[in-house]
Amino acid sequence: MVPVIVRDASRESPLAGHAIAPSWEPDEPDALSSLLALVQDDLAACNRTIVERMASPVALIPQLAAHLVAAGGKRLRPLLTLAAARLCDYPPEAGAARHVGLAACVEFIHTATLLHDDVVDESLLRRGLASANAVFGNKASVLVGDFLFARAFELMVEDGSLRVLDILSRAAATIAEGEVLQLVTQNDLATSESRYFEVIRGKTAALFEAACQVGAVIAGRPATQEEALAAFGLNLGIAFQLVDDALDYAADQETLGKTVGDDFREGKITLPVLVAYQRGSADDRAFWQRTIGAGEQADADLAQAMHVMAHHGAIDTTLDRAAAFAAEAKAALGAFPDTLFRRALRDVADYTVRRGR
Amino acid sequence: MVPVIVRDASRESPLAGHAIAPSWEPDEPDALSSLLALVQDDLAACNRTIVERMASPVALIPQLAAHLVAAGGKRLRPLLTLAAARLCDYPPEAGAARHVGLAACVEFIHTATLLHDDVVDESLLRRGLASANAVFGNKASVLVGDFLFARAFELMVEDGSLRVLDILSRAAATIAEGEVLQLVTQNDLATSESRYFEVIRGKTAALFEAACQVGAVIAGRPATQEEALAAFGLNLGIAFQLVDDALDYAADQETLGKTVGDDFREGKITLPVLVAYQRGSADDRAFWQRTIGAGEQADADLAQAMHVMAHHGAIDTTLDRAAAFAAEAKAALGAFPDTLFRRALRDVADYTVRRGR
Repeated sequence: MVPVIVRDASRESPLAGHAIAPSWEPDEPDALSSLLALVQDDLAACNRTIVERMASPVALIPQLAAHLVAAGGKRLRPLLTLAAARLCDYPPEAGAARHVGLAACVEFIHTATLLHDDVVDESLLRRGLASANAVFGNKASVLVGDFLFARAFELMVEDGSLRVLDILSRAAATIAEGEVLQLVTQNDLATSESRYFEVIRGKTAALFEAACQVGAVIAGRPATQEEALAAFGLNLGIAFQLVDDALDYAADQETLGKTVGDDFREGKITLPVLVAYQRGSADDRAFWQRTIGAGEQADADLAQAMHVMAHHGAIDTTLDRAAAFAAEAKAALGAFPDTLFRRALRDVADYTVRRGR
Repeated sequence: MVPVIVRDASRESPLAGHAIAPSWEPDEPDALSSLLALVQDDLAACNRTIVERMASPVALIPQLAAHLVAAGGKRLRPLLTLAAARLCDYPPEAGAARHVGLAACVEFIHTATLLHDDVVDESLLRRGLASANAVFGNKASVLVGDFLFARAFELMVEDGSLRVLDILSRAAATIAEGEVLQLVTQNDLATSESRYFEVIRGKTAALFEAACQVGAVIAGRPATQEEALAAFGLNLGIAFQLVDDALDYAADQETLGKTVGDDFREGKITLPVLVAYQRGSADDRAFWQRTIGAGEQADADLAQAMHVMAHHGAIDTTLDRAAAFAAEAKAALGAFPDTLFRRALRDVADYTVRRGR
C-alpha cells in the first residue's frame, strides 16, 4: 500500500514502438515500472495493434501518425485500460484480448486530439508559433487526426459492445467540448476556477475516466466497481493536467520534454495563472493583463511570469490541488481488493503528482 | 420514369433550420422537389434532431455549427438516407424513426468534414486564402468539427446497430483517407486519373454510399438490395463530385453559391485540370505547371484557365463522365420496384448532372 518512493527518471518513458528497450538507469527505476512489468505483454500486443491499424495505402497517414503514435509517448492512457481490465480479472480466459483493442482505441483518440491541438491559428502564426506542425502543416494534422479518430471508432465497433461504444463516444464529445471551452477562455483572465476545471475535465480527464471505466465494463463488473474505476480515472486525469499546467511554468525544458512557456505564449488560462492573478499586486495584474490578456509579450516576460508565480506560491498551490485529486483517485481504488494491480495503479497516481515536484 | 426537366433554381435550396419555406419560384420547381415532397415530415424531424444535438453548454459550438448545419445546405445526404429507407418500406410501423436519427448523423459527419476542409494551411494563408474560416479561425473549425463528429457517433450508438456502426465508421475512415490523398496530390500534375477517382470516391462518394446503404440495413433488406443502394450512392457521389469540380471552372458565381476558382487557387488536382493538361499544347502545359504545379498565379490566370479548359473540352468531358456515373447510379435502382421513391431517387441523379449543364 505504501508507494515506492522513486525519483522521476524522465517524463518520456521508453515505451515507444515495438521494442521496449528501457532507457532509464537501473538504480533509478521509472515510476511506472511496476505497472509496466505487470502488463508488459498486453502493452506489446497493444503496440502491435496500433502499428497495424495506422496502416493506410495513403503513405502520409502512417508517416505523420508515426511521429506521435509509434515514435513516442508513455502510453499512459492505454496502460490505464490494460491495468483497469487486469484489476477486474480480465481476461477471463487466455486469448481474450478486448482490453488490448480498446487500449489501442484509447491511444488513437488521444493521438487524434494531439494532432488537432497542433493546429495553429492565424494569430499565433503571426507570432511565429507554427513549430508544432511545421513539418506537415495544419491541414495534414487535421486530416490524419480524423483518420485516427475514425480508426478508433472502427476498433470500438469491432469490440462489439454498445456499452463501450456509448462510454467512448460520449468521452469523445466531452473532449471536444473541453477543447472548445479552452479556446473560448483563451486570453480571458476573468475565467473562473470552476470554468478552468470544466476545461481540464473535458480535454484531459474525460478520456482517463473512459479509459479506466471500459476495463470494468469488459470484465462485466458490478456498477460500484465500474464507477470506482471511472472515478479513479477522472481524478487522476485532473491531477495529471494540473501538474502539466504547473510544469509549463516550472520545469526545466529537459524534464518536461516540451517547450516551457507554451501555455504562456498561447495565452492559455491555467490554474497557475489564475492563482497568480488573484494574489497579485496591481502591477502584477497589469503584467498578466498585458501578456496573457492582450497577448503582448516580450522576451523577458516568461521569466518574469515564472518569478511572479513563484513569489505568490501559484505553482505550489496548483501542485497541492493536484495531490488532492490524486488522493481522491487512490481512495476510489478502495472498491477493489489489495492486489499488485491496485498497487500499481496507486503508484501511477503518485507518479503523476511526483512529476511536478 | 422520365425525369421532369426543370432548370436548377438555385444551388442552395431552402431546407435550412426548422422552417421549410420554399424560396424557389412556383413555376420553376426545384429539381429535388419530388423527393422533398415525399419525405417532408421526415426531413423536418431530422432538422429538429440536428438542432437538438448541436446543443452544448459551450456556446461557440452551436454558434459555429449553425453557420453550416442549421443555416444552409440542401441536406442532400440526409435526404438520401431518408429516401433509401422509405424505398425499402421503412419504417415498418408508425413511430419508428431510426432513419431520422441516422440522417442527422450523416449530416453531422458531412458538416464536420466541411469544417475541417475550412482549415487552411500556412502557405495558403500567405496567399490570402483565409476567408473560409475567417470569422472563427482554424482551431475553432477543427474543434467544433470534432464535436460534431463525436455527436454523429453518439447518434449511431443510440441507433444500436453494430452493422450500421460498422458501415458508417468505415466510411468515416475512408473519407479521411480521401482527404489526405487529396492533400498529397495537391499541385501534382503527374497525378493519374485513377488516383483522382480514388480521392473523390473517398472524400465524397463514401458518405453518399453509406448514407444510402444504411437505409436498406435498418429496413432489414436482403444483401442484393443493400448492395444496390450502396452502388447507387457510390456512383451518385462520384457524379456529384465530378460536377462540382467542373463547376469550379465553369459556373457563374451566383449559381455555384461558392467562389469560382477555389480549386484553382488551392492547386487542387481535379479532372478538368487533368484533361486540359493531357490535351494541352506545350504552352498550355507550361501554364498549368506554373499556376497549379508551382502555385504561382496572377490575376488573369483563372480566366485563362477557364479559356484553355473550354478550348480543350475539359469541362464537357468531365460532365460526360459525371453523366455516365449518374446512369450507373440509376441502373442500380433496378433492384427495386418502380415506386414514387425510386422515381425520386432517379430524379436526384438527373438533378446532380443537370447542375453542371
